[in-house]
Amino acid sequence: MPANTMNEDLKRERQRCSFDPKELTYLLDGGEEKTEERRQREKFFLDDPELSETAPSDYLSHKEKYEHAVKKACIVFKKVQQLQAQGKAGMQNFREVLGGQLGSAILRDGNPLGLHYVMFIPTIMGQGTIEQQAEWISKAWNLEIIGTYAQTELGHGTFIRGLETTATYDPATEEFVLNSPTLTSYKWWPGGLGHTANYAVVVAQLYSQGICHGIHPFIVQLRDEETHLPMPGFENVRIPWNYMLMKNGKVLKDGSYVKSPSSKLTYGTMIFVRVVIVQDAANYLRKAVTIATRYSAVRHQSHIKESAPEPQILDFVTQQHKLFPQLATYFALHYSGAWLWDMYNNVTSELESGELDRLPELHALACCLKAVSAADAAQGIETCRLACGGHGYMSCSSLPITYGLVTAMVTYEGENTVLLLQTARYLMKAWQNCLDGQPLTPSVQYLNSVRRSFGGVYHKSVPWIIASMQRIAAGKIETAHRHMNDKIKRGVNSEDAWNETSIELVAASEAHCKAFIVETYYNSVQQIVPSVSQQLGKALTELCELYAVNTLLKNIGDLLRYSNVTTGDLENLQRWLEELLAAIRPNAVGIVDGFDINDAIIASPLGAYDGNVYERLFAEVSKSPLNAKPVNESFHKYLKPLLKSKM
Amino acid sequence: MPANTMNEDLKRERQRCSFDPKELTYLLDGGEEKTEERRQREKFFLDDPELSETAPSDYLSHKEKYEHAVKKACIVFKKVQQLQAQGKAGMQNFREVLGGQLGSAILRDGNPLGLHYVMFIPTIMGQGTIEQQAEWISKAWNLEIIGTYAQTELGHGTFIRGLETTATYDPATEEFVLNSPTLTSYKWWPGGLGHTANYAVVVAQLYSQGICHGIHPFIVQLRDEETHLPMPGFENVRIPWNYMLMKNGKVLKDGSYVKSPSSKLTYGTMIFVRVVIVQDAANYLRKAVTIATRYSAVRHQSHIKESAPEPQILDFVTQQHKLFPQLATYFALHYSGAWLWDMYNNVTSELESGELDRLPELHALACCLKAVSAADAAQGIETCRLACGGHGYMSCSSLPITYGLVTAMVTYEGENTVLLLQTARYLMKAWQNCLDGQPLTPSVQYLNSVRRSFGGVYHKSVPWIIASMQRIAAGKIETAHRHMNDKIKRGVNSEDAWNETSIELVAASEAHCKAFIVETYYNSVQQIVPSVSQQLGKALTELCELYAVNTLLKNIGDLLRYSNVTTGDLENLQRWLEELLAAIRPNAVGIVDGFDINDAIIASPLGAYDGNVYERLFAEVSKSPLNAKPVNESFHKYLKPLLKSKM
Repeated sequence: MPANTMNEDLKRERQRCSFDPKELTYLLDGGEEKTEERRQREKFFLDDPELSETAPSDYLSHKEKYEHAVKKACIVFKKVQQLQAQGKAGMQNFREVLGGQLGSAILRDGNPLGLHYVMFIPTIMGQGTIEQQAEWISKAWNLEIIGTYAQTELGHGTFIRGLETTATYDPATEEFVLNSPTLTSYKWWPGGLGHTANYAVVVAQLYSQGICHGIHPFIVQLRDEETHLPMPGFENVRIPWNYMLMKNGKVLKDGSYVKSPSSKLTYGTMIFVRVVIVQDAANYLRKAVTIATRYSAVRHQSHIKESAPEPQILDFVTQQHKLFPQLATYFALHYSGAWLWDMYNNVTSELESGELDRLPELHALACCLKAVSAADAAQGIETCRLACGGHGYMSCSSLPITYGLVTAMVTYEGENTVLLLQTARYLMKAWQNCLDGQPLTPSVQYLNSVRRSFGGVYHKSVPWIIASMQRIAAGKIETAHRHMNDKIKRGVNSEDAWNETSIELVAASEAHCKAFIVETYYNSVQQIVPSVSQQLGKALTELCELYAVNTLLKNIGDLLRYSNVTTGDLENLQRWLEELLAAIRPNAVGIVDGFDINDAIIASPLGAYDGNVYERLFAEVSKSPLNAKPVNESFHKYLKPLLKSKM
Repeated sequence: MPANTMNEDLKRERQRCSFDPKELTYLLDGGEEKTEERRQREKFFLDDPELSETAPSDYLSHKEKYEHAVKKACIVFKKVQQLQAQGKAGMQNFREVLGGQLGSAILRDGNPLGLHYVMFIPTIMGQGTIEQQAEWISKAWNLEIIGTYAQTELGHGTFIRGLETTATYDPATEEFVLNSPTLTSYKWWPGGLGHTANYAVVVAQLYSQGICHGIHPFIVQLRDEETHLPMPGFENVRIPWNYMLMKNGKVLKDGSYVKSPSSKLTYGTMIFVRVVIVQDAANYLRKAVTIATRYSAVRHQSHIKESAPEPQILDFVTQQHKLFPQLATYFALHYSGAWLWDMYNNVTSELESGELDRLPELHALACCLKAVSAADAAQGIETCRLACGGHGYMSCSSLPITYGLVTAMVTYEGENTVLLLQTARYLMKAWQNCLDGQPLTPSVQYLNSVRRSFGGVYHKSVPWIIASMQRIAAGKIETAHRHMNDKIKRGVNSEDAWNETSIELVAASEAHCKAFIVETYYNSVQQIVPSVSQQLGKALTELCELYAVNTLLKNIGDLLRYSNVTTGDLENLQRWLEELLAAIRPNAVGIVDGFDINDAIIASPLGAYDGNVYERLFAEVSKSPLNAKPVNESFHKYLKPLLKSKM
């Protein structure tokens, strides 16, 4: 590859950008110092030759992939240990190497020790008594044991009340007896359960004195600490009384059961994970759109004008319409995630002082934001991949694996449809409160004002769009509420009526979430603009407008249905969309440069900073072990006999 | 796995089905005899122990995957040879083992000899002179040589006029001199080019007497026939004069160039491949929806009624709303594909007698149908995958690879956006003809009638929906046409105006295609119903209605914009949708049974006929080489030192 060369198209794009990308970088990181800290951390890991790939993992067998992953994971945590010893930003190191884009750059297919830090330790912290924490956390933290979290069973995922594994208390020996009696009760999915972990938090139905007390967490040893040989499976496994995590519900030694003061206290971890998903979804989308935008600036194809040379594909308006909304969606999810993180912190500190009032609202918002973020990021990433043509299909482009990681978010930690229906339950109650003149929580306040009007005349502004989207949300909430009650009035029982209305309930929940995102994004940008340069402020405003206009145009059916907008207004919105795409065009490369994603994290020949797409693609395929020899053995073994057989 | 047991839920589902699934099978195959023939062919290949997997290919390294694929491909073609020798249905065997669901069941990641049959031989047949065909086809057909088709270059895909590889005629030696002078002119992507093929049809810019005559096909030897060692790369490679395929354009020995009588004659193969894509997309969708439907009948989760046991997830209306439209989409694409295949055959036979009139219409329809089929099938398959929760994410479910195969169709053989814009060009001309009172071709006839009215009152019927969708298409065509002309009137040149209007042009093209699909589907069902049992007729009609209603509801914005529909009508449509889901529910398993897909083609523990989902999942994971030993070496090498280091 030509050293120190920069693709000419990218050079030109960078000259055209109206703002300084560094300013955007510092804004997103939270200041120049934070940027430096992040860059140093990335350098510390990514420049380590032991962690860089000799051959891409795509070429390895499944078994080799696992062994490489264990090796790398061990190196990573040794390096984290070094950083800790130097007293450098503690938790952030874990957060980055475990879940962040840095972690997935080092370990593409996931970290075999991931659940030890992400679930095992936090569960003990959240659900163990002080004594249990003292015993287990220090062992886990010092890596004397490796844990995982075993909840999901082969036949039971979303609906955890349906888990079949049982833990029956035996007061005679002061032990719990664990059993997984059926095929469907096999613990399935826990990361690290197969070969890595030697302990697990196992979630099981607690039985004591002949009564089932629902699901509770237990610590179970899986493998011998010395030999790593697996312990016998879950058939009459006996564990000591104090291996049940008893911070919330507990069993006394005589077998009597003492309830948790509030069943809602265990919500915390669940909501926390959803907040993290919103942020991660945004970051993966940012990576994909960086790759696709740089590639589209370098790639020339087809023609706009017959007489001119092949243009950069970024000049096609259809391409801009694929990519720029993804740029904007990143910011929308980023700011919604930040808002949710703040609310989460506020509500959990209220929880500690016994206030539970805002928990339902937080829960409702976290549910729909997780669902919409995962779905929109996944779709956005796939759009970016497809926008790169055949090269986006190559595994080395990193786009397929990025899609794979994010589309999984649609399913785990609460399946999207299930979560949207949980938010819908909150919205149905809110609408009923609204009808009854009861007070509403802040995030559904709009139902009151919207209820009283059919919308103002079209105005080319984001506030008009926010009002329109709130109108749509209120309209859908009202429709679902009315249809469900109509069914109930006709004699359908309320549970069936809920199921029969669920298509509209999901739609209402999505509409509510979209309105919330647009509003939160707009408010965040309004707050930021006064404190940044005029040029960056303008660029950020254009992206926010694009997100708002594009989201509304995707919902014109709802807009026409629930507001007094005219077809002329729709044509104005379409024109506004086209203006925004044209306005963002010269800044597109500058914006993704502002994301400041390290080339080793980008991990794609299509998206490197220097834009040497073709040189890097060529270098990439030359790593294939198939290309090591001019003639593969299969020619002699299989092809030649076939050729000579002259069939 | 329990032998000869059938899952109880599936048993019950099969008792509920209102029609005999065999009747559907025969209908789709084209008669009982055809079904038998297909089943025997499948049995012949799938029951061969040499072709069944000992370890799933997911566990192999990249190099091993390639070698296994070559081995299997050789066995497959030996078996085809046996069938041919027995005089059994010639071309159908090739079609099935190469592109059909049978082929992808045997070779999950593609057939290394695929392009030899799919592109190399057909190109010589289509573009070689009689003499060239005589020489090369027999060699290729007898497998004396293995060919591929080398068109796409690293820097050039969609826009083939931009290819850089050159073939310059040298009259002194009567040879062509081939060159790929740049990195971007490297031939890239051709299947089998790396290690398998020893010949290729290479597409290059023809130069003769100093003039470029555009792209033409040349036969080039890639590897030694005996040693399989690669020939030198494309730098001044000399090939004989008669290695240029000269059926259409040709170079005389003195270097003078003789043009093809019609440049449109080479369209044939391209359109053929697009017809095949429509059919393949439908078949892959059928496979995915079979898996998801059977799994959803076996899987119990969550609750509808608090007091009742966990229901089959197929009873959730949201799940029905995910899956049943995919069932219907299969039929819609199946019948649209069949229609297109007939038109293709008619038009190509007209072409042979010099009639070119219907070629533009066929081209316009093939472009948009390929694009919409690929996009809708891909999205449908991903919806099916996500509807299976975590288990749909497992590679062994076959859903991820099915998505991978179909999402690639969005890109190859004409990138979707590019194809939709080609159809749009046809539609813009048609609209202009309509305004000018010129005659219209059959597929755009509706523009005339729709232009004169704003739509009839709502009627609960598919014809009303077809009329509505035609109205939407006409409305979008009119809007795009007007916006483009407004720009031109304001002084924008027509090429820029096209680009600036391209978002609306793509939308118009999609709307036209959707209206066409609904109409074709409806007409096909109308034709079939009188000749099948009343029960099957009813089931087929319900699916057609579901496709129509669901498609229209996804476009209510357009409906409100371009017709005089009321919000009350929309609520009626929503109710109709919900009625149809409920009506289809008892037949869902019966319908996928009617597809009669062999379990080895389903290749998914989630979707086998017997419904033993959990037993099969368990059997599947026990194949992992990682599970062969209780302790993986990485414990001793990496984990134990880390654990003992007590960081």
